[in-house]
Order: sequence, then structure tokens, then C-alpha cells
Amino acid sequence: MTEQTPSLVLPETERTRHRRLSEQGSSSRADLDAVLKAGFLCHLGVVVDGTPMVVPTVYGVEGDTLYFHGSVASRSLVASPQATVCLTVTHVDGLVLSRSVFEHGVNYRSAMVYGVPRAVTDPDEKLAGLRSLTEHITPGQWDYARRPNRKELAATVLLALSLDEASVKLRSGPPEDGDGPDAELGVWAGVLPLNATWGALEPDPLLAEGIAAPAHLTAREHQRLG
Amino acid sequence: MTEQTPSLVLPETERTRHRRLSEQGSSSRADLDAVLKAGFLCHLGVVVDGTPMVVPTVYGVEGDTLYFHGSVASRSLVASPQATVCLTVTHVDGLVLSRSVFEHGVNYRSAMVYGVPRAVTDPDEKLAGLRSLTEHITPGQWDYARRPNRKELAATVLLALSLDEASVKLRSGPPEDGDGPDAELGVWAGVLPLNATWGALEPDPLLAEGIAAPAHLTAREHQRLG
Repeated sequence: MTEQTPSLVLPETERTRHRRLSEQGSSSRADLDAVLKAGFLCHLGVVVDGTPMVVPTVYGVEGDTLYFHGSVASRSLVASPQATVCLTVTHVDGLVLSRSVFEHGVNYRSAMVYGVPRAVTDPDEKLAGLRSLTEHITPGQWDYARRPNRKELAATVLLALSLDEASVKLRSGPPEDGDGPDAELGVWAGVLPLNATWGALEPDPLLAEGIAAPAHLTAREHQRLG
Repeated sequence: MTEQTPSLVLPETERTRHRRLSEQGSSSRADLDAVLKAGFLCHLGVVVDGTPMVVPTVYGVEGDTLYFHGSVASRSLVASPQATVCLTVTHVDGLVLSRSVFEHGVNYRSAMVYGVPRAVTDPDEKLAGLRSLTEHITPGQWDYARRPNRKELAATVLLALSLDEASVKLRSGPPEDGDGPDAELGVWAGVLPLNATWGALEPDPLLAEGIAAPAHLTAREHQRLG
């Protein structure tokens, strides 16, 4: 690891130390931010009655805090509010098609965040957190759609998770068996990229006539995610 | 639940019973198969030293068995080989942009499979399982690329997980606040679809000249995933 200022390097813990495929591990805070910024869906891991439960949910990031809806993990969080969770975000960029099946792999970017989530209860902080969550997923929407009223705020379980303990793994580029004996096989090798792209907006069939989609939404049509 | 032949319905257990948003739950085996067939990346949840760990990895399905590489979960599996895992597959189909922030959501298809994975040790079964895994991810590749030799087979940790205990959750369609008071707000509402699409094949820079990509790969270019 090269010397960097502390804030640019993710602190290593027993859980985040890269054990396998260490060439794919990153301890760069910039890499973590980039992975988290590129998406909005995470897989939240909690332990319920001793067994793991992995639930998909949306998240948002602001500064050093990750926000997500707590309701999906309510069984676990009610049972053990001080329990550590693992929140993982993964983007698949393509299939690595090598000359041998054994060398096949995936190009991807993935972040794992460990921590004890904190339930956000203060109404002002909850509103600010929901704003972060909304703006992370759909920038511009917080100022456009109707914001939560007091009743809706109270019904929302918002959790905050620090980014203090996190790790990043990345893999990119071509197969790695191009300079080995398998290169003589005459087998095609390369990458089949996978792209996530926003489509064309689909108006609600119940939408009243004359209501045009706002610019912050039309600007995303046909754009790449992340 | 309507009466169906047992094989078409996922058995309900304490873990797979839908507690929240039950309108989004499915107990259809066909829905489970469709979700698993549509993708190749899962998030595997294991418990390590009492805390959850969620790791992205690829999977394949054949019949009632899901295959995945065990190496990603090696820390957990070595520590407790009889431990239950939770393997979750999620496809995001779009953002549900409602008139109010509170009603915002995601169109998605997700499957959760619980079970104690079995390490596949018999060489013939391991080869068959790797074939299933490879063909699930990239049909045609098993007969095209070099298959694993004895040494590679021995170095591969392949796990098999039964589909006996699984649940499916789905959400599709437009926002749901089109017939409520928020419809009067004049706010645009609808869905912003998200599509995963294969790109153009990227040949390995080290690929020898004159090796064309095989038809089973070129056929996937610019096609939708799933």
C-alpha cells in the first residue's frame, strides 16, 4: 500500500482485510465512493435467529453516511438493534471469457460496508436523510415530488450506516490466459460487456393530460447507470 | 393461495413466509425459476464470527439445484460447514416515480434461497455441476473453451444448494398514487425503466489474429440480459 493521507485510505479491520484475490482489493476511499455513487441498490445482510438473511433495498450516500430504509430488515433490527450488518453493492461490468473454463470470471466493482446501523429518529435529521436517499437515487426529485408529511415521516424507518469500515473489490480488463499455454488453443477470448441503461420514461396510465415529464427525469433517458 | 399441485408451489417456512408487502410475494415455482434463470449474479449471505457477510458471486441452476463457487465464502464454510446460507438474486427493472416521495419505489424481481450448501466432491458430479454453472452464465461455452483438467477440478470449490426453501418477491407496473389526492398535484408520475444489456464483444488484445468469436457469443451482443 502506498502512503496516502489517512482520509484517502480505508482503515483495515479483521473483516475488511482482503484475503483472497488480493490484487482485486482496493483500500482507496475514492474507489469506495465511486462504487457507491454508481448505484442505488444494495444487498443488506443481517442475522435472524442465527441464520443470515440477505435483502435487496435502495440506499443513498451523503458524506460518510449511507442511508437506507430499515423496514426491510425490521425482523432483525427489532430483535437485535445493536447488531452489525453487512451492506454490499455490486456492479457487474461484463463476463471475462478466457480460453479455459477455469479462468472464466466477471468484471465487477463491489463495496462491502460493515457497521451497526443507527435508527434516525430526529424529524429534521430524518427529513435530511430521506432527501439524501431520494437525491442519490433520482437527483432533482426531492424538489419536484411532494415531500413526506409528518405522518409519512413517522411511518418511515430510516437507518444510517457509517462508511468507517468498508472494503472494495474490483476486476476489469481482458482475460489473463493470453500469454499462457492455452493461447495456442485457437479459442476466442475477450470480454462480453454488460451495461445498465435507463430506458424511455413510461408515464403512469392515470397521469392527467398535459403534465410533461420534468427535465431532471428526461435527462436520464437512455443514459448509462453510474 | 390457490390450490396448485405441490411441485408448482414453493413450500412456506418460517423464513420464507412473506411478512411485509405481501402483495409482492410469490409462492410460484415458475416465478422462482424465471428470476434465477434471468441472471447469473447472486449475493451470498453467510455468518462469520456472529456477523453477516454478503459476498457477490456467480451461480447456475439445473433442476432443483443451484451451483455456486464456494471459495468466496470459504472463511465461513470452513468455520461452520453445516451453516445455513441465504442466497439472494435481484433484478432491478426500474424506478417507480410517484407523485409523493413516500410512494417512490422500485420495480424488481428477487429470489431468496435458504439452505445448507453441500460441497460437491465427486469429480464426475463436480464436472457436471461446473458445466451447469458455465452453461447457465454463458450457454455454449462449455463445449467451446478448454474444460477443467484434474488439477483445476481439485482446486475448485463447488457448492450445491437445494431450491427447497425459497421465496420470491416482485413489483411491476406504474405508481399507485394515481387515484389518490396526490393526483391533483400536477406532478408527473411513471416509471423510469432500467435495462441490463450485453454490449459488443471486446477481443483480448493478446488474441492471435484470425480467431473469430463463436456464434454462441456473437448472438448475445446487444441482447437484453434475462
